[in-house]
Amino acid sequence: MPRAPHVEKHFTAGNFVRDVVIGMSDGLTVPFALAAGLSGAVQNTRLIVVGGLAEVAAGSIAMGLGGYLAARGDAEHYEQEREREYREIKEIPEVDFMMRYELGLEEPDPSRARTSAGTIAGSYVAGGLIPLSPYMILASASRGLLASAVVTLAALGIFGFMKGRYTGTGPVRSAAQTMVIGGIAAAAAFLLAKLIA
Amino acid sequence: MPRAPHVEKHFTAGNFVRDVVIGMSDGLTVPFALAAGLSGAVQNTRLIVVGGLAEVAAGSIAMGLGGYLAARGDAEHYEQEREREYREIKEIPEVDFMMRYELGLEEPDPSRARTSAGTIAGSYVAGGLIPLSPYMILASASRGLLASAVVTLAALGIFGFMKGRYTGTGPVRSAAQTMVIGGIAAAAAFLLAKLIA
Repeated sequence: MPRAPHVEKHFTAGNFVRDVVIGMSDGLTVPFALAAGLSGAVQNTRLIVVGGLAEVAAGSIAMGLGGYLAARGDAEHYEQEREREYREIKEIPEVDFMMRYELGLEEPDPSRARTSAGTIAGSYVAGGLIPLSPYMILASASRGLLASAVVTLAALGIFGFMKGRYTGTGPVRSAAQTMVIGGIAAAAAFLLAKLIA
Repeated sequence: MPRAPHVEKHFTAGNFVRDVVIGMSDGLTVPFALAAGLSGAVQNTRLIVVGGLAEVAAGSIAMGLGGYLAARGDAEHYEQEREREYREIKEIPEVDFMMRYELGLEEPDPSRARTSAGTIAGSYVAGGLIPLSPYMILASASRGLLASAVVTLAALGIFGFMKGRYTGTGPVRSAAQTMVIGGIAAAAAFLLAKLIA
């Protein structure tokens, strides 16, 4: 009794963290870069906030529903393969064993799709509000950009560090990677907007 | 000789299609929704195009670099597990066999990270230019939104149909899903921007 629930809990926690990582890494990066790009084109922070929040709404819904469908797809794939195994064998000794070792499939949690969608979307929103918050407080786009870069790069560093610890990539290296990706994306968006605006 | 290269080719094609799907599904959806949101807040299509292109730059770089790191991570994970297998056994009969059947790992293609990054980023850009193109041609934001919705929903439908055919989800169902996700994300972004602008 104490073993199986523990393993199940671990499995669910792994999915949860994975969904937070999926939602938050894009949520921190893309709204940050978009706001940086807009601040290269307009002086009005209100417009940057509107654009940024529209992106957060769009991105969180698109990623959340994408995660929902991916989890649903996994569950259906599992069912299809199980049915095929039932058909293939005359006697059914241990189908779950075959699912796991022949096909490398774990039985998916039935509530996984909804939980996954909510976790990804929520993490995207939580991540996206960090780069946008300075523009909500400050009136000048250039000062907003500076404050947003400081706050977001710090958040990307902390997030990357924790992600690296969890995934075993090495926390410092992971922190450097997430900060570099966010920085490059924001710089590219800013330069492109400056160029064409 | 004719068998192994054929399998390898099939494997690479699978990765390529997967990367196109990753890049294009976000590339079609998020810039579409962001432009819809901005058109709920401003009348100036030039600003929508600037914001949209900034998002495409940011999104394609963030997703492309993310894909690069994911592929590099897979390759490193494979190497680590292979070293562990070497250490674990005294005799080395067929390590690749153990990698494949004990751990379910295939040896990754060494050029995979760069190819994956380029494919994801390119597909994001290709996808993102579709919803933005009407705003580049038309001067009115509301007419741009209408044209963008028609063009993008059609593109999402075709993309979803082809994706469904490839993944085996059922083309019509997959087409409906991608269109609904894109539509909901764009409607939410538009309403949110209308509300706060």
